[in-house]
Amino acid sequence: MVQQIEIVLPAFPRGFHLITDLILSKIQVLPSVGIFHLFIQHTSAGLTINENASPEVLMDFESWFNSAVKENESYYLHTLEGSDDMPAHIKSTLVGSSISIPITQHQLNLGTWQGIYLCEFRNNGGNRKLITTIYGA
Amino acid sequence: MVQQIEIVLPAFPRGFHLITDLILSKIQVLPSVGIFHLFIQHTSAGLTINENASPEVLMDFESWFNSAVKENESYYLHTLEGSDDMPAHIKSTLVGSSISIPITQHQLNLGTWQGIYLCEFRNNGGNRKLITTIYGA
Amino acid sequence: MVQQIEIVLPAFPRGFHLITDLILSKIQVLPSVGIFHLFIQHTSAGLTINENASPEVLMDFESWFNSAVKENESYYLHTLEGSDDMPAHIKSTLVGSSISIPITQHQLNLGTWQGIYLCEFRNNGGNRKLITTIYGA
Repeated sequence: MVQQIEIVLPAFPRGFHLITDLILSKIQVLPSVGIFHLFIQHTSAGLTINENASPEVLMDFESWFNSAVKENESYYLHTLEGSDDMPAHIKSTLVGSSISIPITQHQLNLGTWQGIYLCEFRNNGGNRKLITTIYGA
Repeated sequence: MVQQIEIVLPAFPRGFHLITDLILSKIQVLPSVGIFHLFIQHTSAGLTINENASPEVLMDFESWFNSAVKENESYYLHTLEGSDDMPAHIKSTLVGSSISIPITQHQLNLGTWQGIYLCEFRNNGGNRKLITTIYGA
Repeated sequence: MVQQIEIVLPAFPRGFHLITDLILSKIQVLPSVGIFHLFIQHTSAGLTINENASPEVLMDFESWFNSAVKENESYYLHTLEGSDDMPAHIKSTLVGSSISIPITQHQLNLGTWQGIYLCEFRNNGGNRKLITTIYGA
């Protein structure tokens, strides 16, 4: 059994955003056991799984990534699309463009403190398109 | 064919640990061909695949991550759970919460030098719960 | 349906390289819907998905990774295999050893600007072996 759903996210501001509930609201039936794969079709935003409780964690993620991948590095060659563009590409590779989560008893088998993050690395990223692929038995 | 096994790891000290043999000891039969998916249900530890021979590599990983994601950054807001907590969240996203490995002829098709690492980012992380999902034909 | 193909890449110079077309040239038939999983059997090279248009993006990736994971850090213990070796291990974990891409209507469902990168972190990495696992319906 393979099921695929396309999800268009509304525009989010630059930063890290918990989207677990939004994603779950688009899914109807999960198999008894399997894998839930979520893929983002962009190169300046990413997906990750992290802490689902504290809004401060989301802000600290944004601060650390800005500090580790700075804008306007003198060695950047790809600068035409704005100072947030090349850092966004690097950050998206650090975070990754997909996550996969076990499905157990028809539910995402996340840990108690885990949630799905959209990592928006552009100042004005706009809508983001995700592909959900669900396979199992 | 989809098979799922829950694995509870004993408490490991902070650092990077080779757990390939421990994981394999929990698995009975692998399909002829497929994918082995390993997921960690925590947000302050991670999983990765890297060099399986030198204990010094494991120590250098710990040193680099501590240097790249420092404790007590002045901009951290999420500090209530200890100085190792917010860095652990960031490190776990850099490393990732799952790995997936091809299965070929009923075996994990890792390269000669590849092993599975548990990356324990807390000082006292305690037990860690993993979900193995095996699918194939 | 599970299909597996081994791909041996020619030696690439150190740096980031777009290999989407090379990979697609090795694949014959994709299922209607499913997942395309690509795994690299090495610990000093990685795979990621990023921008497929500008050669300058590839060069900026190399610059950023060299700046973030420096050679000859005084704390490195694993130095016997050359100054590019330990950094290559760390970079490969940051990038990851596999990517997975949704398959839709018999094609890789990448976004318009997405391509597959080989990230070669050694000065003389030589051939690199990849395992493609394709599953779907």
